[in-house]
Amino acid sequence: MSSKNNAVIGQSGGPTSVINQSLVGVIEEVIKSTHIDELFGARHGVRGVINEQFIPLKGQNRELLEKIALSPAAALGSTRDKPDADYCRKIFASFKKHDVHFFFYIGGNDSADTARIVHDLAQSEKYDLQVFHIPKTIDNDLRVHDHCPGFGSAAKFVAAAMTGDNFDNKSLPGIKIDVIMGRNAGFLTAASVLSRQHDEDGPHLIYVPEAPLSEEKFLADVDTVYQKRGRCLIAVSEGVMNPATKKTWTESFSTHLDKDSHGNVQLAGTGALGDYMAALCLKKLTPAGGKKLRVRADTFGYLQRSFPGFVSDVDAKEARMVGQVAVQHSRTKGASGSVAMKRISASPYTVETFLTPLETVARETKHLDAAFIAGGNNITAAFKAYAAPLVGPLPVVGCFDEMT
Amino acid sequence: MSSKNNAVIGQSGGPTSVINQSLVGVIEEVIKSTHIDELFGARHGVRGVINEQFIPLKGQNRELLEKIALSPAAALGSTRDKPDADYCRKIFASFKKHDVHFFFYIGGNDSADTARIVHDLAQSEKYDLQVFHIPKTIDNDLRVHDHCPGFGSAAKFVAAAMTGDNFDNKSLPGIKIDVIMGRNAGFLTAASVLSRQHDEDGPHLIYVPEAPLSEEKFLADVDTVYQKRGRCLIAVSEGVMNPATKKTWTESFSTHLDKDSHGNVQLAGTGALGDYMAALCLKKLTPAGGKKLRVRADTFGYLQRSFPGFVSDVDAKEARMVGQVAVQHSRTKGASGSVAMKRISASPYTVETFLTPLETVARETKHLDAAFIAGGNNITAAFKAYAAPLVGPLPVVGCFDEMT
Repeated sequence: MSSKNNAVIGQSGGPTSVINQSLVGVIEEVIKSTHIDELFGARHGVRGVINEQFIPLKGQNRELLEKIALSPAAALGSTRDKPDADYCRKIFASFKKHDVHFFFYIGGNDSADTARIVHDLAQSEKYDLQVFHIPKTIDNDLRVHDHCPGFGSAAKFVAAAMTGDNFDNKSLPGIKIDVIMGRNAGFLTAASVLSRQHDEDGPHLIYVPEAPLSEEKFLADVDTVYQKRGRCLIAVSEGVMNPATKKTWTESFSTHLDKDSHGNVQLAGTGALGDYMAALCLKKLTPAGGKKLRVRADTFGYLQRSFPGFVSDVDAKEARMVGQVAVQHSRTKGASGSVAMKRISASPYTVETFLTPLETVARETKHLDAAFIAGGNNITAAFKAYAAPLVGPLPVVGCFDEMT
Repeated sequence: MSSKNNAVIGQSGGPTSVINQSLVGVIEEVIKSTHIDELFGARHGVRGVINEQFIPLKGQNRELLEKIALSPAAALGSTRDKPDADYCRKIFASFKKHDVHFFFYIGGNDSADTARIVHDLAQSEKYDLQVFHIPKTIDNDLRVHDHCPGFGSAAKFVAAAMTGDNFDNKSLPGIKIDVIMGRNAGFLTAASVLSRQHDEDGPHLIYVPEAPLSEEKFLADVDTVYQKRGRCLIAVSEGVMNPATKKTWTESFSTHLDKDSHGNVQLAGTGALGDYMAALCLKKLTPAGGKKLRVRADTFGYLQRSFPGFVSDVDAKEARMVGQVAVQHSRTKGASGSVAMKRISASPYTVETFLTPLETVARETKHLDAAFIAGGNNITAAFKAYAAPLVGPLPVVGCFDEMT
């Protein structure tokens, strides 16, 4: 037995606006606990573990921790590294050297997979290591989990942005395309529906990766809306699929694409998809009278996961909670897993947490339920009911159409 | 003399997050006044005037008006139309028909010019018409005005977005390019400097239209920052100029460009500039060890002028005030002009308003003072002092670098 029972916490993958709430949730619960001697924060996830770049966290100033909890992006630094067996051996060398017997890893499905690999290697080497995956992802695509911390705040940003852009588009009418994050799952794009308060409000068309979209259908949809309303506001996922190529639109029209270490093609951090769709509208749609169309595209980009001071209160609270709960589970000898939320009541919205095995969350992702998608270009009331409590109240707005 | 003294209000040009504060400021002041019988809201600016699309505004529900005041984008609808002599004759026909003797026009320099043309035509026809330009522009580029309503809120959005993106970039290091609105004036791009709290914080490079930038200087700047910090966060104006071509970067590399009715090339509503700059970095910069650079670009887009629920309190208050003040001036027989603010004290921040002739504001715009720009890639403390009170407090954040 080692003389110390230390813990390591790391943050991984694309960060969120509330990922530090989970970090601070872990820190404050460890401070209250007696089974962990020191909690080390690994800089940039597993990379900080193998490089032994640790910050001792138990003695951190509480006031600073509360400021960090309010800050977007991983305060410890994040990583896209996905450890292989050799990488994992280095992780253990580091853990053994620092008497680490608890590993808390905040991340999405790739990070859950990293946690699983590290956990399994520890098992096979009979090293006493309890591993906890703490969920975060704006994509909301973790299996088993009802929803994921980080999603509610990103969804609030998207819904508010779309509320504003609906007014902007009404004010200076035209075709407006807004590209929203979510490589494989359309949850965040679907959240744009929360901005609709009146029948007339956009987004008039919502395209998610789960409903493949041909260029012909896209153009026909836009034309129909534009003919009827004289404007058209479109929410489209960065991961929208082309049914002909079975690839994303971006992969279908691009040749030079950046890939991360997980083999994912770069869809974010570029305006290419929006610009392509705008050019397509300009080329193929001609309004009556031959007047030139006004077509614009915005890509909401990294702001969706990093805009400060505009988080969902429910999301922030839950992100803190799953961090605390992970530490509580770590008191049970031998326990490991991913801390998940289950919705036990829709109204009033109530959740409870439980521990699910790492392999149930790792790798594959969850997709939007078919019941959430309508006509390949719209999102249902069922999704609104699912997502609204996670987002909380949106900014108060009004327009003259409300006049009697 | 006509039997009635009616007024028309319109909104014009690219809207802002607080343009409806000015609208409601006018409405509430007219309600308190006795010299105006009815206030008509023209749908989509001067176009609504000639099409006689008016909403009577004096009897509007106050609760709805307060909700509209909180809403981004022109609640009456906006326009890019710039009236010529023939268009103006139609405006008069409409004004005469509806006994309109007061015209309030909320907009930027193009709108001030429209107001001027309408005013001058009225003079030449000896028609009794008092014309008031009420300033709005996120570009902050009106001559005579110390600053413009709409700028503070857009600047707050940009500064907050950059605060978040700085953390994101620190969390997953690389080169990140953020493209910010402002065709000719760099005020909004310069506001990104407000996010810097520590020496290490981005944006590390800030490029405004007033300081032309060669591709060579850009690449050398980025390389220097990246070598030193292992990351580089860049704020660049959509209107950044190429010193060789004497055109914007976008005009220099594009062939198909959309133009509005004022002859302005489309710089917003596309990710082209960011993507171009990112591709340039990828092509020309090679980090030590030959490791592939992580380069991303975001274009903040229309969210800068339309994001709801995140306005500057000072900006909202001032936008309301200039609307009220315009109506107050309209009580003075024969008075016309643009309602401007003058800063009479820097600390505590205090402004007073005055009426400036329309021709002093119309057409030409103001640029960033040379004292606000440093080294062609940075913004000075003098600008921070100028802009900070207009933006107000930014979200509270913290990071582990603050540890002692």
